Amino acid sequence: MVKKAKILIRKGRKEFVADLDREVTVVKEKQFFIEDLSKDFSTTYGSIRSSDLKKTGVIKSSQDKEFRIFDASFIDMYKRMKRIPQIIPLKDIGFIIAKTGVGPDSIAIEGGSGSGALAMMLGRLCRKVYSYEIEKEHFDLAKENAATLGIKNIVFHNSSLYDKIVEKNADILCLDVPEPWKVIEKASKALKAGGFIVSYSPTIIQTADFVNALLPRDDFVHLKTVEVIEREWEVEKRKVRPRSKTIIHSGFISIGRKI
Amino acid sequence: MVKKAKILIRKGRKEFVADLDREVTVVKEKQFFIEDLSKDFSTTYGSIRSSDLKKTGVIKSSQDKEFRIFDASFIDMYKRMKRIPQIIPLKDIGFIIAKTGVGPDSIAIEGGSGSGALAMMLGRLCRKVYSYEIEKEHFDLAKENAATLGIKNIVFHNSSLYDKIVEKNADILCLDVPEPWKVIEKASKALKAGGFIVSYSPTIIQTADFVNALLPRDDFVHLKTVEVIEREWEVEKRKVRPRSKTIIHSGFISIGRKI
Amino acid sequence: MVKKAKILIRKGRKEFVADLDREVTVVKEKQFFIEDLSKDFSTTYGSIRSSDLKKTGVIKSSQDKEFRIFDASFIDMYKRMKRIPQIIPLKDIGFIIAKTGVGPDSIAIEGGSGSGALAMMLGRLCRKVYSYEIEKEHFDLAKENAATLGIKNIVFHNSSLYDKIVEKNADILCLDVPEPWKVIEKASKALKAGGFIVSYSPTIIQTADFVNALLPRDDFVHLKTVEVIEREWEVEKRKVRPRSKTIIHSGFISIGRKI
Amino acid sequence: MVKKAKILIRKGRKEFVADLDREVTVVKEKQFFIEDLSKDFSTTYGSIRSSDLKKTGVIKSSQDKEFRIFDASFIDMYKRMKRIPQIIPLKDIGFIIAKTGVGPDSIAIEGGSGSGALAMMLGRLCRKVYSYEIEKEHFDLAKENAATLGIKNIVFHNSSLYDKIVEKNADILCLDVPEPWKVIEKASKALKAGGFIVSYSPTIIQTADFVNALLPRDDFVHLKTVEVIEREWEVEKRKVRPRSKTIIHSGFISIGRKI
Repeated sequence: MVKKAKILIRKGRKEFVADLDREVTVVKEKQFFIEDLSKDFSTTYGSIRSSDLKKTGVIKSSQDKEFRIFDASFIDMYKRMKRIPQIIPLKDIGFIIAKTGVGPDSIAIEGGSGSGALAMMLGRLCRKVYSYEIEKEHFDLAKENAATLGIKNIVFHNSSLYDKIVEKNADILCLDVPEPWKVIEKASKALKAGGFIVSYSPTIIQTADFVNALLPRDDFVHLKTVEVIEREWEVEKRKVRPRSKTIIHSGFISIGRKI
Repeated sequence: MVKKAKILIRKGRKEFVADLDREVTVVKEKQFFIEDLSKDFSTTYGSIRSSDLKKTGVIKSSQDKEFRIFDASFIDMYKRMKRIPQIIPLKDIGFIIAKTGVGPDSIAIEGGSGSGALAMMLGRLCRKVYSYEIEKEHFDLAKENAATLGIKNIVFHNSSLYDKIVEKNADILCLDVPEPWKVIEKASKALKAGGFIVSYSPTIIQTADFVNALLPRDDFVHLKTVEVIEREWEVEKRKVRPRSKTIIHSGFISIGRKI
Repeated sequence: MVKKAKILIRKGRKEFVADLDREVTVVKEKQFFIEDLSKDFSTTYGSIRSSDLKKTGVIKSSQDKEFRIFDASFIDMYKRMKRIPQIIPLKDIGFIIAKTGVGPDSIAIEGGSGSGALAMMLGRLCRKVYSYEIEKEHFDLAKENAATLGIKNIVFHNSSLYDKIVEKNADILCLDVPEPWKVIEKASKALKAGGFIVSYSPTIIQTADFVNALLPRDDFVHLKTVEVIEREWEVEKRKVRPRSKTIIHSGFISIGRKI
Repeated sequence: MVKKAKILIRKGRKEFVADLDREVTVVKEKQFFIEDLSKDFSTTYGSIRSSDLKKTGVIKSSQDKEFRIFDASFIDMYKRMKRIPQIIPLKDIGFIIAKTGVGPDSIAIEGGSGSGALAMMLGRLCRKVYSYEIEKEHFDLAKENAATLGIKNIVFHNSSLYDKIVEKNADILCLDVPEPWKVIEKASKALKAGGFIVSYSPTIIQTADFVNALLPRDDFVHLKTVEVIEREWEVEKRKVRPRSKTIIHSGFISIGRKI
């Protein structure tokens, strides 16, 4: 991590109020991300002295309230990245990584970079990442985010996957572009035999068009097309139920393999 | 990879039969995993000579049928692991890895090892893994699987997480045990501040009991409890629909954080 | 229907704007429920004369804008019912009706009435409905709603299913109460052999407690426990995708049978 | 019900076996559908005398084993219908009925009849049903099924909805045909203002084509397109979890309204 940051947590608390005969929230759980450790930090439960911000474990505010503090980890930094609207969620990134088995010996190509979310995760776990983005603004943002997270093994290209892929012998090529079928021919040359082509699209029509372009080819097999649904549950004593309203769709993932 | 293995693929093919006025499958897609490259390999489409098994790309069988061949990758070896019945699926492993952001700087503890599936994936992506398993038979299997896959950074303990965790300062601790709540106290000592506790259980009752044990504690926060549903789609021309019958449940994942 | 009401619709319209090179919504789709046909009705697209409100088909506003008008049907009235917060959704009501096959020869018992949503639907489709509600305010509301919809075959009791069920020989008994297992004994006497007991609960713990109370009994079999998930799709040209954010949980439905 | 039939149930039983320290199933739950009450009925737990088959309640077999017996209800008969492979499931039928609010005052048109499943349910709950089916074999089957269930308010046409719809002023028109968009023009004339058009298709491409044909029309509004997912849960003591493998897709339902 380039930047040294801390996570400060005030744990929530409920109390049973006898005359109301029910539990009420007396302290709301609150988490803070602190980038500047050189200055005191203010909260509604009192301020934390700069000297305490350098510690790890239990600290107290000026109002004698207990907080917990520890170093921000990769995922804390990742979640603080500057974003553009459409970002591939972690559930989908995790699916792609686990299903293709990429790791420290893998070469990855991906694009459009967007804010760099997928590039960053691939960068963290793979040997080398090449990320393409035609929009200058996103290209700059992705580079800035990688620098903030201290990820150094990503090469960003300010160009489109539609036009040219210069790398060869990649283990995985991930597409988050409006017309992924346009990249298949170039992907075939960029991937090594056994390498994975992955396409991520918000609509089923794009997904079907991509798979239907892949199916008749001699140089690819279609492995699977899925939606990954993250269904969150609320658990608190006997109140155990799926969350009522939640994000239930992000995109479809298609995985093929260069043969 | 310790063992050198190959993937051999005979791509499926359909043909339009004019007098039947519809498409029929004339070649079924078939994939072979070949461990012994020193001998000729027989298929229903003819045999492949040992000398061809060492190549990469297009090869032909004794019946002049085209096959594609390439080196098995990590995920091919992983899928060939010897297994015990209950194995945590890749979709869930990917979710855990992505949501906690563990990577090459991370120390992981997990158990029961089972056949070692989760240990192997964590071993591939993290710095060091400590895996606990009380059943001697599973302990041996997990060690054997790690050796086959050439994963060397896993320490296997033939003991239970219920009894003792010797490591400290871990970034993540994953539980796949019948009574995960019994491990929380030990997990608190084994995890560093900011480290993640993850529990995976097939039933919602175990899940609720675990989360309800975590909630009142000062040293943990509950981040989320989810089901990850992998919904597979069939795509072939206009036939685009979710697969009718599919595995729709494996387990619930709860993630907490040591604070 | 007791009240005579009308549905007035102004259909939405999109237009392709050449210089913007995209479609824009020029008229937003809008639906009105009109209870009082004796007065002119104002909209942002001009007012509709009272004489036109009595027609069916295409009518025009004072601004010469086209509207469509027709008689409100049962479901339009139903959706306008006065409600209390927790209401059993139509997807769940439909499931219960279809799976039990109740119809014009069926006697139904249900409670708590709440705002009467389930009672009303059962009333529409069954021969006779007996609905229990201990809270006076809800009891009054349910009766008022039934009167508004003109449903006359429901007997409302201002008492609790926990205390007494006076009817016998029912084909179906539906429970929407916090502790449904408390009603099983009484349900056994109220249902005819082959009659259905249905319980609807928001949490899985209530659901499990109900089913676990049913399972060991000699006089009931448990048929199934389900969640009914209504997953909405957006369809507009090539933009075909599940709605991103949606209500994904209401309650669990357990169906047993008196034997 | 034309045919008089009975449901005979032998309730399952588990027993705790102390020396095995676990529960074992000692009697498997078993349900029989008995059409011929004039003859003794044999089971693996002994035979039931014809005279007992006419009773309701607890009866005993020749082996002194307890059974429960009661009259088959509509839904028992419905489930015994002769079927063709693709049948619209009850969860989807229930959804359509509840969301459109059809009932004893409603006129329904539907087709293709298939085995008559939807026609039968609409027949049970609506005033009159007109069902179209071009395939003679299915037309005959649907008529036979209706006769068996004693449903008399369905008129079956041995012709296709693509060609002609003779009825007018319908409250609902349900399509289960390969190309539902071909029926929209005729549906517009057959439905009364405010009537519902419902299309049921296994693939999303058919669904999208139907909705995209409906959207630009002046005489229809698109209300919603959904998948109804019935997710079954296993409940037995602490073993509370979604069923692992289940049918997770049948078809998409699109509902529009004639205006």
